[in-house]
Order: sequence, then C-alpha cells, then structure tokens
Amino acid sequence: MTLDQNWFTERCKEAGSAFSLQIKRKLHDEQTPFQHIEIYETEKFGNLMTIDGFVMLTTRDNFVYHEMMSHPVLYSHPRPRRVVIIGGGDCGTLREVLKHPEVESVVQVDIDERVTRLSEQYFPELCESNADPRAELRFGDGIQWVKDAEPGSVDVIIVDSTDPIGPAEGLFSGPFYKDCLRVLGSDGLLGQQSESPLYHTQSIIRPMHDEMRKAGFLDTLTLHFPQASYPSGWWTATIAAKDMPVTFLREEACENKPFATQYYNDAIHRACAATPEFLRRALLD
Amino acid sequence: MTLDQNWFTERCKEAGSAFSLQIKRKLHDEQTPFQHIEIYETEKFGNLMTIDGFVMLTTRDNFVYHEMMSHPVLYSHPRPRRVVIIGGGDCGTLREVLKHPEVESVVQVDIDERVTRLSEQYFPELCESNADPRAELRFGDGIQWVKDAEPGSVDVIIVDSTDPIGPAEGLFSGPFYKDCLRVLGSDGLLGQQSESPLYHTQSIIRPMHDEMRKAGFLDTLTLHFPQASYPSGWWTATIAAKDMPVTFLREEACENKPFATQYYNDAIHRACAATPEFLRRALLD
Repeated sequence: MTLDQNWFTERCKEAGSAFSLQIKRKLHDEQTPFQHIEIYETEKFGNLMTIDGFVMLTTRDNFVYHEMMSHPVLYSHPRPRRVVIIGGGDCGTLREVLKHPEVESVVQVDIDERVTRLSEQYFPELCESNADPRAELRFGDGIQWVKDAEPGSVDVIIVDSTDPIGPAEGLFSGPFYKDCLRVLGSDGLLGQQSESPLYHTQSIIRPMHDEMRKAGFLDTLTLHFPQASYPSGWWTATIAAKDMPVTFLREEACENKPFATQYYNDAIHRACAATPEFLRRALLD
Repeated sequence: MTLDQNWFTERCKEAGSAFSLQIKRKLHDEQTPFQHIEIYETEKFGNLMTIDGFVMLTTRDNFVYHEMMSHPVLYSHPRPRRVVIIGGGDCGTLREVLKHPEVESVVQVDIDERVTRLSEQYFPELCESNADPRAELRFGDGIQWVKDAEPGSVDVIIVDSTDPIGPAEGLFSGPFYKDCLRVLGSDGLLGQQSESPLYHTQSIIRPMHDEMRKAGFLDTLTLHFPQASYPSGWWTATIAAKDMPVTFLREEACENKPFATQYYNDAIHRACAATPEFLRRALLD
C-alpha cells in the first residue's frame, strides 16, 4: 500500500526503512536560524515535532526517551546535585531531572530557543517544571558552554541532542568529551543519546565508547530502550563514568523513588544495561 | 516526504503508524488456500515475507524474535524434552529450539505448508535444521492438534502465530489455553507472541494474562524485546506456567549455553521480564 498526503514519513536512508505517522493537520512550520521546525497534530500519537524532517518527539511515546535519558544516569551517581543538559530544548528531560529532590541546579543549554518556545505551546506537559527555581534555561552553544565551565563544577552532564549531523556533530567527538571530563567532579557521569543498536552499532555506538575512553573516562556502558518513533523503534543512551564503575546504583533511593514514571522503575534500571549478544561482541576490545 | 513504488509499507491502523522497507524487487506472490504470501528483496533488510500485507519476517531482524520466542521459555523449564510449535512455518523458531541438546522432539504444526516451502527457498538459513531427526513438520490445524494430543505429553508449547485476526484468532482464547494446560506435563510452559506493549497492552496483553489464568495456569509473565519490522518496533512474548513460578531459570545451563545467538544471552534472559511501569500497572489485578 502507499500512504496519501495525510501522513508524515521519516526515511532512514542508511537502513532503507521509514516510519510514518498519520496526521490530522500541520500546526506550525518555521525556519529558525538553525533548523527547520514543523509541528503536526497526528491521529493517534498526539502532537509531533520534527526538525529538518526528522522526528524529535511525539506526545504519545516521548516518555520512554525522556525517562531513560535522565533517571538511569541520575540514580547511577552517588549524589547528583549539579546537572547540565546539552540540547534538550523540548524540556522533557529537564522535567524528569527536576523530579529528583537531590538535584539542586539544572542548566539546560540548547542552541535554538524556538524549540523551547514551541514546546511550551505544543507540549506544555513537558514544560510544566520550567519555572522551577532550580532550573536555568540558556540558549546558546552547548559545546562552548562546557568549554567555558569551571573544572569540577558539574555532577551529571546529559547530552540530549539531535543526530550527529549538522549542529550536533561536535557533541559526538573527542574534544567535547575531554571538556566534559574536565567539567565533571569526582564520580561525575556523562549520559548521551547514542542512536539505534540495530542501525548504528558500528557507525556510532562503538566509536562513541572508543572516544569517551580515549578522552579519559574510566568506564562506559550503553543502555537500550524501545522508542517507536525513532528509526528501528529501538534506541540507546551511553553513559561514561569519570572515575568509578558505571554500574553503580543507589538501590534504596531508586526502589523508593518519590515520583511517578511511565516506563522507568528499578527493575528497568537493572535490565536496561543487559547487552544484546551482537552489541556485546561489537564492544569487545 | 512520500515514498515511491519502490517501498513496501505496512500500516498499523489502530495506531495511525506505518513501517516501510525499501525494496529492490518482488520475488514471489501467491494466494494459498489460507492467505496471501508475498516475498520481496529489500535494499537493506535482506528478504521480506509478508502475509496478507503484514510483515512476517525479514532476513535482517528476525533473529531477535526467533531467539526470544524460544530460549527464554526453554531455559525457564527444568527439563524441556518434548516441544510443540504452533504456527512458526518459517522454521526460525524451530531452528532455535533445536539448538538445545536437551530437547528430544519438536513437532511444528503450521496450517500452511507454503510458508515453509517458501521459507526453504528464500530464508534457507532458518530451515537449516529442518532435517534434524528430532523435528517433525506437520501441516494442519494447530488448535485441533492440541485438542487431540495426549494429556501431559508436552513440556513446552510455543505459539508462534500471526496476529489474532483470521486463522490465528482461536489461538488467543480460553478454550485453546485449557487444551494447552491439559496437554502440558508437570512444570509445563506455554509461550506465545503477544504483540506490542505500546499498542496492545489493553487489547491483547492484559486479556491474554486473564484468559491464561482463568484457564488454570498458575503464573504468567510478559517478556519484551525490540523488533524493528513489527508495529512500534517493540514486541512481547507471554509465558504461562502450569504449576510453578514462571520466573524459574536454569542458571548454569543458560550461562553456559552450547550454541551461538545474536540477541539472547543470560543477561538478556534476566532483563527481558523487567516490566515497564505502565505495563506493570496495567497487569495489576
């Protein structure tokens, strides 16, 4: 069958696959100084934001991504007080991070303020904590922000970026990881979205581990989770630990987390780093 | 963007989503007495078999499904000697089951012999164990086969069927589960594909648990795994245990399995039943 014009389709060129959502109407279309943002109302996935034709998030399934970008790395740090989010302009990761009472400050640095303003309008539930006094929303170059930050001034860095093409390319590189390492304090953790295990193990996940370790991180670990609206429906986050094993978990806090989630829980925390056999082999030295 | 005629698209009506694969050419097209089978050569996913327009399997990603339909349930049984596969005509699950030296006999009952003959031609790697003397390939009604089987004559039943519409509908029902329970011996396990957690928790997964327990199974558990070419890219199998907890695992055998896999391993076994929060809540009584 073919899909008529009432569908949004994202093609994944390198995999010869495509994912489509049935849409009711386009709500917004804007070329910012950085990228082309479109918002659609879909039939069954709520609202959809795309950037340069790629799905960023939908109302229906963003919960998995945002929970898995924030809670695993935060419960893997012994005392996460100072958090930085690079990218993350839709504020979904920010909302999850702010659910942790032990977090004292979160700086979010996205290059494009329009992503945040449109998220406030079309994904208001993700922005419900933006006025939290612990949160600081900055709009600028995240790579530069990390370069300029004080050594040892951050506990957890979360890189919630677009794919490693265009403005986000520098976030997947050795020099950026070296800056992150310098900015992180003792026990510091870096968590970064790392694309699809099925499509990007050799092109992105394995090189990311190599670059993080070459930059000086002691340990690295890739978590995986379902994400229907991203290519292959299967996604990862990779965590790099400055000076401790990345498998640490604040068990009691995690088992008694004082907030609600839709995907994450302590069983998922323990499970999400179980490495599929092909990925385990690909990450062997 | 729209996709031209060089793409196969499967639309998931209830979710307003679609998945597409870029194709080189159609290799086969056949209406059998039971269903419409098509085989395509894709650009990046190897060969693709569809039945009535729905993706059955691709060369590239079937390994996850077939491994997760077989190894978890087999390592959860203390001594799986006699196995029955209902459906499974492509023989991929059969191949995985036959990797277990402790299995003494496998009967596969698919209603449509043409699925198997076409799999032999276009997915020969899945059929490489079909001549194993422990395997018996039958073509007929799996529901009737279970109805006619001797009580206590089977250790593990695997239901590797199409969606619960058309010929497979009866495989998702109380009377079938009652027959399975009768046919299973002590410690017997039933494992069945149970669709997408994101799309079918309320319509299929929860009712399946209820029907299995009403039929007399002591315990039930849903496993989840990525499956790029199925709707939402996220799939499940649900295991029902006749008379023991379904969380049993032959740890030493699993950790030292004498065969290679691409997705499954002992870490994945322990992880795949970690229940996402929304699914855990949906399955609460």
